[in-house]
Amino acid sequence: MTTAETALSAHPFDTAIALDRAAESPHHYRGVTSPAYWNMVGPFGGSTAATALQAVMLHPQRLGEPLALTVNYAAALAEGEFAIHARPVRTNRSTQHWLIEMTQVDAAGNSQLVLTATAVTAARRETWSQNDRPLPTVSAPEDTPEVILFAGSEWVRRYAIRPVRGGIPSVMDDSGDDSLSQFWLRDQPPRPLDFAALASMADAFFPRVWLRRARRVPAGTVSLTVYFHAGSAELAAHGSDFLLGQAEGQAFKNGFFDQAGHLWSRSGDLLATTHQMVYFKE
Amino acid sequence: MTTAETALSAHPFDTAIALDRAAESPHHYRGVTSPAYWNMVGPFGGSTAATALQAVMLHPQRLGEPLALTVNYAAALAEGEFAIHARPVRTNRSTQHWLIEMTQVDAAGNSQLVLTATAVTAARRETWSQNDRPLPTVSAPEDTPEVILFAGSEWVRRYAIRPVRGGIPSVMDDSGDDSLSQFWLRDQPPRPLDFAALASMADAFFPRVWLRRARRVPAGTVSLTVYFHAGSAELAAHGSDFLLGQAEGQAFKNGFFDQAGHLWSRSGDLLATTHQMVYFKE
Repeated sequence: MTTAETALSAHPFDTAIALDRAAESPHHYRGVTSPAYWNMVGPFGGSTAATALQAVMLHPQRLGEPLALTVNYAAALAEGEFAIHARPVRTNRSTQHWLIEMTQVDAAGNSQLVLTATAVTAARRETWSQNDRPLPTVSAPEDTPEVILFAGSEWVRRYAIRPVRGGIPSVMDDSGDDSLSQFWLRDQPPRPLDFAALASMADAFFPRVWLRRARRVPAGTVSLTVYFHAGSAELAAHGSDFLLGQAEGQAFKNGFFDQAGHLWSRSGDLLATTHQMVYFKE
Repeated sequence: MTTAETALSAHPFDTAIALDRAAESPHHYRGVTSPAYWNMVGPFGGSTAATALQAVMLHPQRLGEPLALTVNYAAALAEGEFAIHARPVRTNRSTQHWLIEMTQVDAAGNSQLVLTATAVTAARRETWSQNDRPLPTVSAPEDTPEVILFAGSEWVRRYAIRPVRGGIPSVMDDSGDDSLSQFWLRDQPPRPLDFAALASMADAFFPRVWLRRARRVPAGTVSLTVYFHAGSAELAAHGSDFLLGQAEGQAFKNGFFDQAGHLWSRSGDLLATTHQMVYFKE
């Protein structure tokens, strides 16, 4: 297969998170924003988080697999090239700590920081295990109609989303009374699950304030954390099947709210838990 | 009041998080570990998180108040001096993004990274607000007996802890069936609440795996996130009254578990939500 054929057959998510490593340093990566995952004023935050994590995944000094990822969105990415600096700052026997910074050259030619992130990777061992957040009782994905979450953002078309409850309110009339969403979701077209895809899906929920208030106000994630509870073998076994994602706001206060989320396999494995702090206006 | 008198009257928490700023740079701070907040093999992680946040609080370029804090514990601090490098890496109109690194010189004379953190501070404005996690119905702190959580760690004596439910199991016999704790807590002696104190209290729960299994196994926090839902005026109004803290594990899997937590004022304000990923053995 030639390079051109590979590119033609690549999944759009793989294209979106693709990075080139600099020849002179294992810590420096370059990428390009993807129109396929465009949101309103920049790329979808989930794909950006996945791209930051991808630098860790590609790093030749990486030990173990992702355990925790926190991404802080400092500015909207502009369309075009960006740079990532990802380095292991402490390597222990079974855990490794990472600092990640994403920058972009602005119109004046200055490099501007657009994202900071930290990650912890770990070599996990089998221990006593217990899932205290079982899969909610919901209709099967085959019995749940698929929707386009909202018009105007390209990234929503990159996911098959089947809301069990808590879809976008059909009428925005200030009538909301909770912010709980449960969606079956998977990549569109289907793609085998991996850490980057899971990080991205952790952000695949529209702003909780829209649901809670039944009112669409400007909103954007400021900080996103993902805890990974599965290893690569479990993710590979999951394949490209639907996940159940759940998201709910906890406190909405003076311009910011938090969101708590869960991502399960159909068989009930809690693959990831996630939290975010989100800006909203009004 | 002389400097000596100030030191004599200082609250042990203020002593623990005290930092000196370097004359030559606003980004460089020095501190010393506190025996009053000693845990088993290093300082209590809550006071360490508070110390990292304190560098941001003291920074002359800080804009706004803490919104989100993530602390990654890369290594146990040794007793003695440490350095903090805290810098604002992006300042927007109403949010500011911080990178924080804590280092310590090891026995061989080399500076070693012991902690990374990120923080977001923000200038908040009054908006529509809603607390969807009301204060649980629990007995008042006055009607709840105080306990020393466990012997052997000095820091537990720096908090008045009154467990409503989910205290340390009296018998470690593998009989546990949930990991939910609800504690009234405040500084001991009482101290007016501020962001640093709230960050520290977010970590004032013993490892969930001890409760879930009724079995004491080695455990330690790897990554801690705190989202602040109150401003300094609300924290000041809270004063030194008890908070209700709640913590619960979600997924325990192959050497790591996550914990979701909430901190309320007695009047029901959700002051902070918090999450952590914790290493455990066996």
